[in-house]
Amino acid sequence: MNQAVSADKATAVPFKDLANAIRALAMDGVEKAKSGHPGMPMGMADVAAVLFTKFINIDPADPAWPDRDRFVLSAGHGSMLIYALHYLLGYDDMPIEQLKNFRQLGSRTAGHPEYGHAKGIETTTGPLGQGISTAVGMALAERLLNARFGNDLVDHYTYVIAGDGCLQEGISHEAIDLAGHLKLGKLILLWDDNSISIDGATSLSTSMDQLKRFEAAGWNTVRVDGHNEAELTAAIENARKNSDKPWLIACKTIIGFGAPTRAGTSKAHGEALGAEEIAGARKALGWPYEPFVVPEPILTEWRKVAKKGFSAHAEWTKRHGASAKAAKFDKQISGKVPEAQEALKALIAKHVAEKPKLATRKASEVALAAINGATELTLGGSADLTHSNLTITKGLESVAPGSYGGRYVHYGIREHGMAAAMNGVALHGGFVPYGGTFLVFSDYMRGAIRLSALMGVRVVYVLTHDSIGLGEDGPTHQPVETVAALRAIPNLLVFRPADAVETAEAWAIALASEKTPSVLALTRQALQPQRVSASENLTAKGAYVLREADGARDVTLLATGSEVEIAVAAADLLAAQGKKAAVVSMPCWELFEAQSADYRKQVLGTAPRVGVEAALRFGWDRWLGDNGDFIGMKGFGASAPAPELYKHFGITAEAVAEAAKKLIG
Amino acid sequence: MNQAVSADKATAVPFKDLANAIRALAMDGVEKAKSGHPGMPMGMADVAAVLFTKFINIDPADPAWPDRDRFVLSAGHGSMLIYALHYLLGYDDMPIEQLKNFRQLGSRTAGHPEYGHAKGIETTTGPLGQGISTAVGMALAERLLNARFGNDLVDHYTYVIAGDGCLQEGISHEAIDLAGHLKLGKLILLWDDNSISIDGATSLSTSMDQLKRFEAAGWNTVRVDGHNEAELTAAIENARKNSDKPWLIACKTIIGFGAPTRAGTSKAHGEALGAEEIAGARKALGWPYEPFVVPEPILTEWRKVAKKGFSAHAEWTKRHGASAKAAKFDKQISGKVPEAQEALKALIAKHVAEKPKLATRKASEVALAAINGATELTLGGSADLTHSNLTITKGLESVAPGSYGGRYVHYGIREHGMAAAMNGVALHGGFVPYGGTFLVFSDYMRGAIRLSALMGVRVVYVLTHDSIGLGEDGPTHQPVETVAALRAIPNLLVFRPADAVETAEAWAIALASEKTPSVLALTRQALQPQRVSASENLTAKGAYVLREADGARDVTLLATGSEVEIAVAAADLLAAQGKKAAVVSMPCWELFEAQSADYRKQVLGTAPRVGVEAALRFGWDRWLGDNGDFIGMKGFGASAPAPELYKHFGITAEAVAEAAKKLIG
Repeated sequence: MNQAVSADKATAVPFKDLANAIRALAMDGVEKAKSGHPGMPMGMADVAAVLFTKFINIDPADPAWPDRDRFVLSAGHGSMLIYALHYLLGYDDMPIEQLKNFRQLGSRTAGHPEYGHAKGIETTTGPLGQGISTAVGMALAERLLNARFGNDLVDHYTYVIAGDGCLQEGISHEAIDLAGHLKLGKLILLWDDNSISIDGATSLSTSMDQLKRFEAAGWNTVRVDGHNEAELTAAIENARKNSDKPWLIACKTIIGFGAPTRAGTSKAHGEALGAEEIAGARKALGWPYEPFVVPEPILTEWRKVAKKGFSAHAEWTKRHGASAKAAKFDKQISGKVPEAQEALKALIAKHVAEKPKLATRKASEVALAAINGATELTLGGSADLTHSNLTITKGLESVAPGSYGGRYVHYGIREHGMAAAMNGVALHGGFVPYGGTFLVFSDYMRGAIRLSALMGVRVVYVLTHDSIGLGEDGPTHQPVETVAALRAIPNLLVFRPADAVETAEAWAIALASEKTPSVLALTRQALQPQRVSASENLTAKGAYVLREADGARDVTLLATGSEVEIAVAAADLLAAQGKKAAVVSMPCWELFEAQSADYRKQVLGTAPRVGVEAALRFGWDRWLGDNGDFIGMKGFGASAPAPELYKHFGITAEAVAEAAKKLIG
Repeated sequence: MNQAVSADKATAVPFKDLANAIRALAMDGVEKAKSGHPGMPMGMADVAAVLFTKFINIDPADPAWPDRDRFVLSAGHGSMLIYALHYLLGYDDMPIEQLKNFRQLGSRTAGHPEYGHAKGIETTTGPLGQGISTAVGMALAERLLNARFGNDLVDHYTYVIAGDGCLQEGISHEAIDLAGHLKLGKLILLWDDNSISIDGATSLSTSMDQLKRFEAAGWNTVRVDGHNEAELTAAIENARKNSDKPWLIACKTIIGFGAPTRAGTSKAHGEALGAEEIAGARKALGWPYEPFVVPEPILTEWRKVAKKGFSAHAEWTKRHGASAKAAKFDKQISGKVPEAQEALKALIAKHVAEKPKLATRKASEVALAAINGATELTLGGSADLTHSNLTITKGLESVAPGSYGGRYVHYGIREHGMAAAMNGVALHGGFVPYGGTFLVFSDYMRGAIRLSALMGVRVVYVLTHDSIGLGEDGPTHQPVETVAALRAIPNLLVFRPADAVETAEAWAIALASEKTPSVLALTRQALQPQRVSASENLTAKGAYVLREADGARDVTLLATGSEVEIAVAAADLLAAQGKKAAVVSMPCWELFEAQSADYRKQVLGTAPRVGVEAALRFGWDRWLGDNGDFIGMKGFGASAPAPELYKHFGITAEAVAEAAKKLIG
């Protein structure tokens, strides 16, 4: 067995024992749970041991220290690697009992690393490819902050461990292309090159020359024996010294290293090894200790690392104390944007006074101009639709290769990579990221949006062209189910504002929601102003009576976004016929759901209801009641000018009034 | 201006006029619509003219001829390129009036090419990256059929035009990796290398060396001047001759070629050029003709191409007539699988008799064994979860590089690429593709699933691990919103079967639905048998009374999939307390929605209703009524053994019975 050879004569504990501690804990944890993935942590134990004992700057006593190195386990199924490391490093929330409760209800040692479940987990991983793509956002945030605050305050590395799965996923292409282009040289990717995936050998499904691929994307590359301490040490050292481009360090490893019959096979990947195999592994590795036992000298050696991180942290604290930029840095890191909130309040008052007729994408641009002018914490961008999403504002400079003073990222035609990178920026801290694409292409980045919601990070998705109202581009570009599909995601605020006021209100809520991502679904087409008062952020209630009926309601018309003006026109038509209709604007269902039952009842009323949205009915029955009706889409859209499409699909004031009259009887 | 130089002395019409006809029609069509994308068709006109006049084998008189070359416009925004070509080639459904009605309601010339809207459109494109990935499926189907029927019956090329957007999208990575690995040498990708994307120069967002990237993926590459007829001709000729690997032909072009001020800029990309620019382009190109006018000699020259295609088709018809394999080929191409339906009927009868307790993923495997044994038309696969999705059955050989006799594709860890490739296989004809991954990762392939639905192609998505019932992998892997998000998509059948019988029934419907894709949401965990009669495919009704109450109903319990057994247990609990509960199984909401209002009313009943699903409530209110209740998830899941999770989240028979009793009062 090609056991890692120690190159460090100074330590009393052989390097192989440091690595084997990880292996043993990983196989023991999985074995006890009878569930999990031992292969990866056992295969990458040497890599992790080199990285964590020799290089990484983290402080287990203060895992959120801003200038720490970031570590992302993109191959999240190998979560026991993180838990083992955190136990060995002495994180106070990761005693051995946690490892014994791997994958059990209420433990911090979830099946995949979950951000927020245990200290020091920088991001939730498991869905493959997300980790590396999120790490690109972290590495970007580091460079952006470095450009603003210098090496004294910001100068750290982002390390990623990724497997073959991560590199096969499409999102990895978007991520490495962006990282290579932007020359994010402090990003170091350690590829677990074990030639095995779940179905068997990777040669079943790929013939990719990964090194060449990464070089094509503008990365430095090197290949090492992933079980050779000296080679690994030299490679990481070299990568740290040469930060002109990001680094791929291809670590040739044996999955399940040490397991006598399963090592090097897909049988080592995703199930407990069993007592016999584990006994064999203990023998082969020279690890005679009981399950979950790491002898004191080995544990002590590991915990020296923590002290090293503590020293680095202390030095940073000294520099921070001496820095003229410290206060500004602290503010940036705080993520608080009160000035933007003030600016939005003023803007809302102005909108109420001036009643502009704007597309909500345009209203969003106006809001962003106010926000970006008031705070330096926002980081804008678009997936190559800047002048359609209207995400750039005056004075925002672009981030460019090697030049990180700007605040606008051209993410390229890479929605998924953009979303994951924004997660990384938000997780890193220092910026509030927002990024645009067409609403329908939220499908392309749903994997990352879901993680924004699951982790609870403040990312703002600016999704324009939100219905058939986009017109001629046709059904491939017209969302009909998309808003519903986003509303289905928990802990995601989906706004579909009806005018400039609601758009600005939505922005205010999105910025204030520090633990929740937001979607702004915005129109291409201009909309009539609706709101006449700015006394309260009514969008924060999710839904509200925009226009009460003149007397007891005969009917309540519920609408969102561009269809609010249709509901208002329908109410006028009904009024002309002596029918009393109230109009309820519902810019954010999630926030309405969070109101008291009384408030909801008061808004919805007891009269029959008609919903109006240029989308499918799916989800609407929550608000319509047993006898309600709905005016909207019945299937995919079509290619034609928008006004014709509204007529063609029967989403008109007349149709709403007609439906209402039928209900009134 | 570097106008294309004709290398073909024989033709009376200069090559440049053949290409300029495309340019003029494209700019005229967009100008009249005041909407669309002139830049790409004008930039790629020379490439298209070379490809279509010299190489492509299509027969406009019979655009569905099985052995035609396939052409995919991955850069679908350049749809005027296809419409111009089809007019020039004389497709009978593409008279000049259609081009004058570009992007208008009811015309065939939709904003993006829509499969089924006009003859000869092989696939719907527009969402970037889908075309190239769909084309990989087409090229794969060609090789699979070639392996079965030989060169006489199947021997054609798949040509793709793709732009920078397509190559930046992550899905392109998955597609080119798969194509390179499988050595799909008859796939020829013509890259519109114009260095421009919507935000500006591509150098804003990428530094990718595309040739090196494709070479890393196992492709042949060559770079040519995209406006040089001779270079283009030689490159395509060479690519056709050397079919060891797929080909990237990088065509250096000028976007909006001919437009005096906008050529070579992002201003040429996505809007009408305007009268002045068009006049200048006419002059620069030497095209003095009126809008939409193509002079007779040029049109005649173009229509010679159609005759060439007709001859190729006629020769093929002769070979087909003489082939001993003709009947078998015709059957394969027909897509009909009556034997599989018979096999499923027998299986269902067996299940009803034997009442197996199976996970529905296992029941799906059993159904697939019956299907794959009865027909040779199915093409299985998985995104590297073969033994989790249970998508392979005995005797299915794997498709391998250069070896296409098998019927199982290891798609790799590439969900999006798999879905798009399956669309391509279905569009090509000859196979019924199905492919597996975890349900939650449908998020990764939603872009392609949406296209399956929009185009109406028979693709079967086998999505296992469909709820918290998967247990320890935790919230990243546990769908809670995913079934709802899929139900939101129009023209997609989403099945969540409750037992082995319903699973087999769902497979029968999926195979019979030739114009509709299907999702099978399947459990990891074993489920009790529910169905006691096989007299009718009740899943085809979408929902049905699984167990009627003993007398007038006090309550109706609605459930899907793994929660049906919980509803049944709740009904037992209620019965013990003298409450009469009916249980309704709802395996497919879309099919239930399609039933008569009477049937729906009869199934749902008038008693209060409780829904049960290990998912969020979103969408359920459609069935619950004003006073209904719902037992399910309220947010993301957690990592623990499945039985504990069901208890933890309160999805139990006791909870259902309790909710029912509250409603009964």
